[in-house]
Amino acid sequence: MVFGNMGQNSGTGVAFTRDAATGEDIFNGEYLIDAQGEDVVAGIRTPQQITKEGSIRWAELAKVTEEDRAKNFPSLEEVMPAIYKELDDTQQKLEDHYTDMQDLEFTIQDGKLWLLQTRNGKRTGAAMVKIAMDMMKEGMINKKTAIMRVEPNKLDELLHPVFDGDAINAAKVVAKGLPASPGAATGQVVFHADEAEDWVADGKKVVLIRIETSPEDLAGMNVAEGILTARGGMTSHAAVVARGMGKCCVSGAGGVKIDYKARTLTTDGVVFKEGDWISLNGTTGEVYEGKTGTKEAELSGDFSELMKLADKSARMKVRTNADTPHDSTVAREFGAVGIGLCRTEHMFFGEGKIQAMREMILAEDVEGRKLALEKLLPIQREDFEGIFEAMHDLPVTVRLLDPPLHEFVPHEDKGQQEMADLMGISLADVKQKVEDLAEFNPMLGHRGCRLGNTYPEISEMQARAIIEAAINLKKKGINTHPEIMIPLTGTVEEMKMQEDIVRTTAEKVIEEQKERVEYMVGTMIEIPRAALTADEIAKSAEFFSFGTNDLTQMTFGYSRDDAGKFLPVYLEKGILKVDPFQALDQTGVGQLVEMAVKKGRKTRKNIKLGICGEHGGEPSSVEFCHKVGLDYVSCSPYRVPIARLAAAQAVVRKKVEKKAKKAAKKG
Amino acid sequence: MVFGNMGQNSGTGVAFTRDAATGEDIFNGEYLIDAQGEDVVAGIRTPQQITKEGSIRWAELAKVTEEDRAKNFPSLEEVMPAIYKELDDTQQKLEDHYTDMQDLEFTIQDGKLWLLQTRNGKRTGAAMVKIAMDMMKEGMINKKTAIMRVEPNKLDELLHPVFDGDAINAAKVVAKGLPASPGAATGQVVFHADEAEDWVADGKKVVLIRIETSPEDLAGMNVAEGILTARGGMTSHAAVVARGMGKCCVSGAGGVKIDYKARTLTTDGVVFKEGDWISLNGTTGEVYEGKTGTKEAELSGDFSELMKLADKSARMKVRTNADTPHDSTVAREFGAVGIGLCRTEHMFFGEGKIQAMREMILAEDVEGRKLALEKLLPIQREDFEGIFEAMHDLPVTVRLLDPPLHEFVPHEDKGQQEMADLMGISLADVKQKVEDLAEFNPMLGHRGCRLGNTYPEISEMQARAIIEAAINLKKKGINTHPEIMIPLTGTVEEMKMQEDIVRTTAEKVIEEQKERVEYMVGTMIEIPRAALTADEIAKSAEFFSFGTNDLTQMTFGYSRDDAGKFLPVYLEKGILKVDPFQALDQTGVGQLVEMAVKKGRKTRKNIKLGICGEHGGEPSSVEFCHKVGLDYVSCSPYRVPIARLAAAQAVVRKKVEKKAKKAAKKG
Repeated sequence: MVFGNMGQNSGTGVAFTRDAATGEDIFNGEYLIDAQGEDVVAGIRTPQQITKEGSIRWAELAKVTEEDRAKNFPSLEEVMPAIYKELDDTQQKLEDHYTDMQDLEFTIQDGKLWLLQTRNGKRTGAAMVKIAMDMMKEGMINKKTAIMRVEPNKLDELLHPVFDGDAINAAKVVAKGLPASPGAATGQVVFHADEAEDWVADGKKVVLIRIETSPEDLAGMNVAEGILTARGGMTSHAAVVARGMGKCCVSGAGGVKIDYKARTLTTDGVVFKEGDWISLNGTTGEVYEGKTGTKEAELSGDFSELMKLADKSARMKVRTNADTPHDSTVAREFGAVGIGLCRTEHMFFGEGKIQAMREMILAEDVEGRKLALEKLLPIQREDFEGIFEAMHDLPVTVRLLDPPLHEFVPHEDKGQQEMADLMGISLADVKQKVEDLAEFNPMLGHRGCRLGNTYPEISEMQARAIIEAAINLKKKGINTHPEIMIPLTGTVEEMKMQEDIVRTTAEKVIEEQKERVEYMVGTMIEIPRAALTADEIAKSAEFFSFGTNDLTQMTFGYSRDDAGKFLPVYLEKGILKVDPFQALDQTGVGQLVEMAVKKGRKTRKNIKLGICGEHGGEPSSVEFCHKVGLDYVSCSPYRVPIARLAAAQAVVRKKVEKKAKKAAKKG
Repeated sequence: MVFGNMGQNSGTGVAFTRDAATGEDIFNGEYLIDAQGEDVVAGIRTPQQITKEGSIRWAELAKVTEEDRAKNFPSLEEVMPAIYKELDDTQQKLEDHYTDMQDLEFTIQDGKLWLLQTRNGKRTGAAMVKIAMDMMKEGMINKKTAIMRVEPNKLDELLHPVFDGDAINAAKVVAKGLPASPGAATGQVVFHADEAEDWVADGKKVVLIRIETSPEDLAGMNVAEGILTARGGMTSHAAVVARGMGKCCVSGAGGVKIDYKARTLTTDGVVFKEGDWISLNGTTGEVYEGKTGTKEAELSGDFSELMKLADKSARMKVRTNADTPHDSTVAREFGAVGIGLCRTEHMFFGEGKIQAMREMILAEDVEGRKLALEKLLPIQREDFEGIFEAMHDLPVTVRLLDPPLHEFVPHEDKGQQEMADLMGISLADVKQKVEDLAEFNPMLGHRGCRLGNTYPEISEMQARAIIEAAINLKKKGINTHPEIMIPLTGTVEEMKMQEDIVRTTAEKVIEEQKERVEYMVGTMIEIPRAALTADEIAKSAEFFSFGTNDLTQMTFGYSRDDAGKFLPVYLEKGILKVDPFQALDQTGVGQLVEMAVKKGRKTRKNIKLGICGEHGGEPSSVEFCHKVGLDYVSCSPYRVPIARLAAAQAVVRKKVEKKAKKAAKKG
């Protein structure tokens, strides 16, 4: 729409019934006197504020004197008080009518106000929460509506650091990857995890750049501000670990070339050398040149009230995936009511632990393995004590060793020589053993309970460490609820054999210590065959936890580490609507989940059912889990609030659907 | 049972109502005068023949003169004619009663015959066929019984070379691997495929020894007498290819150490150097030191009659997996009525073809790929013409390109330099591209229709080659029935996009050539998700072919190349009853097959259903395929007769079950 020259008592503007950035109940907006409608939106001229209060605030930020402001940038309230009064009345009516924050477009022609459009206004995550809770308190909307008003994924914005101010708008985007873990990060470029540690020890802020990350990089990832990888999808090692840490990560930035030797990152003609500043937006996947400011997020009272409201509505519980006392504590603060997945393998990468683990793997025979396992036992026990204590009174699902052993052994000469010296064997022997462990498709190889069934002594040690930890804490008056989880079960026989080992060991420890603790034994359902034969497996398993990352990998036949080569094309061409590693594929993978739920419950009525894949924190997947009747979802600490809200929304949505059906029947 | 000293007119022996080795209807057996029962079995003393005819035959083979024989080794018939007469009458009565060849134990005490035991006798594959067919012709058993009397797997003995004579019994077993492909082989040890070719060109017989084989080894495997690998299971590359070739193969012989540099094979202390003689038994997995004689198997008239009988009973058709005119012809001779799986990738490894393929893979962009594809087009077309002609009038299912591209590129400097020169790019560029193609889990990576959907020009070229070949043959008056098969489909959208490419290309060719040929477009069902969503996929696919190798890999989460690390332990501990790559896992994988059959037929009533995994030639799996209602099974040429018999037995067994049920109801 084009306006002519409308004279001094004409103008055009946009307004919000509440603050779209903070959610405050303040009428606000901008207008241009004597302007064409598009000018305001396009930002060609500096617009003026609508309210006097807003105008004064603006002047302060823009460093404009009150004199200057009143003369050159007066508010609409000051310039056309009658029109302003009419606009203010109208906005209130509109908000009351639509019971939501409105985004208005208006024009003033020859002293007359014309409303061009009104619609529900877009808003930040923080505003979304505040407006929903305020409107509920004001009695405009009921509790259910308040719960439904907040987009769960938007909560993420509240939980992570964000870029501070407008500097980021000016920064140059030099690459784009996957938004693997939300938040903002700025730091100096380093290419090696151990150097990241050194630099941070020297007081520097770093962004760790890797072609891909591996468990050996954990410590470096932990101290970095953010992580950027050239390869790997949304569920690559870097992405999963970063989300677990609540750390900003951009993964699979295919356009960047990383040269470890030259220590350079080249992207789109720009070359970053070690030490150069770079910024990452893990929420959008954008990579920026240079340094920018970031600020920590704060959780408002509204947020916590919303969460309480959600918990009252939700049927499903929300647990967390955590492997350290620190993560457990963070997750508990975010409202997790237990650990749904504690990956024991992450524990082996700590200082002094990896050597014993490597000794175990490189051992010549059972006896050698047992000796090394004896060294690992106290380490594991201590780790479990820490986590169990942080999660006192709440259930903790501990998964026995899962990844292929090849992931633990040293792949470079230095580390191999170290192991040779330590074990008194030749470097060649170490090399040979490392080579023997290599697999064509490690994802489908010698891992999970296949390890525990070929090397039962490993499961034995882990079961012992768990039960001893629980007993030690019980003696200190701390309550624990360990749930021992067998990974990668595909047949009931595998499960039974592991259950036997765990129960026999546990009972032995209980007898030794003359102290009983309760524990459960269950399994991951992450192999399609496990879902297909869940009725059999439930004879042995007291609980199922759906490992939907692996289940998605096997059901689709996609390796999450390699899918970067075709998934983007598939999404672009519309072969896939969404990345199945992000949102659970309800049509395919979901069929297996539902089948396993039904078969599991048929065999064991009160079997405990949960999900511990990445999907446990994704709203549409959480809703699916509610629908098929899971008892809980488990996700990384920083997604716990999202899952709590999604679990509540699932209940509300189902109720609404039920009502609609009823009404349709009556009608 | 222990006998005392029984005097001159006492003795003990075993006898067969027919010849257990050849199946001839000749009463035969051995006895010892004045002996304890166990002596005969244990072979402590040289036993004498029961019949005079047998005795004379024996003497000839043992080079004993008639005088010596008659004096020192007379037959029972000669020594105790009355007893012999009684025994002969009894054996006939027993065989008539049990209507099967009997294995008798008897003793003679003080001139009186005592029968200790009678049971159905064990026999060779050849004897099994002959006895069944003879008894049917004699009217002792009916056709159904004749069909059921032959163990399908035993037919394999008739189809492959066997060790000649007793030399093998004396040979030392030095290692044991998996019985990957049946038959006997003896040859000189070589460690590289190209050397195998050279040695054979020099008139030598070789056994190819590899840690594992890859498609690059095909030509060498083809000329070797047999193949021995240290790694890989029953469905490793070596095993699958060898079975396809009908070539003896022992795979996954974990105990052997192969040193390519030193050109040695070390096993259990024995070191084989290049050129040393070695022998393999692919039926048992045994590896022998030294050279032994082998002889080709001959197919008797009984065999062919049995096959005709089987085909009359069977409902399912039997096709073959074949990639060359030669294999197609062999399979046709074995009774295959079509090709169920023609793997186009095998064709790319021929001379002069691999370069064009590599050019295509290493090309910079679509244009470069198209140029290389233009070179591949006539090569593919010619290959298809050869196969279609060999299979004239019968359907040929051609699978579009399936394996990850990394399998085709050169991994050594020499080959990489060759490609760099050919394409006018730097060696570093070639190396970089090869590295970029590497995947963590190639099985779950960029392969199958993921290639055809990211590089549609590949599918286009292949579709064109197929249709052009069919039209060229039609112009020569040769009838073809191409069925174009999309590999690794997981979603209906993938299938639709490929179907579009194929149909559009086909119609274009038909218009260009002004000649119409009929063709079908269908898909493999080898991804669990494809089975789960088969109703959707059937909207686009005219046929399903169950790729149960990959389906087993994904459903169990087992990589067939890596499973050697835990499968043997699983079988030993009883976690698995059988290797799921050998016999279809009916409980798990079978559920998916059955589900896909039902869903597929629901959408498309007359959808054509087959299986082309290795299981298509395994009797229990063939029976399962019959039960769930597949139209055909497809297997390697040398297993076609086995599948034909198994398909007939499935029908007979179902009829028997039905009858039994009916009887039970009446009773």
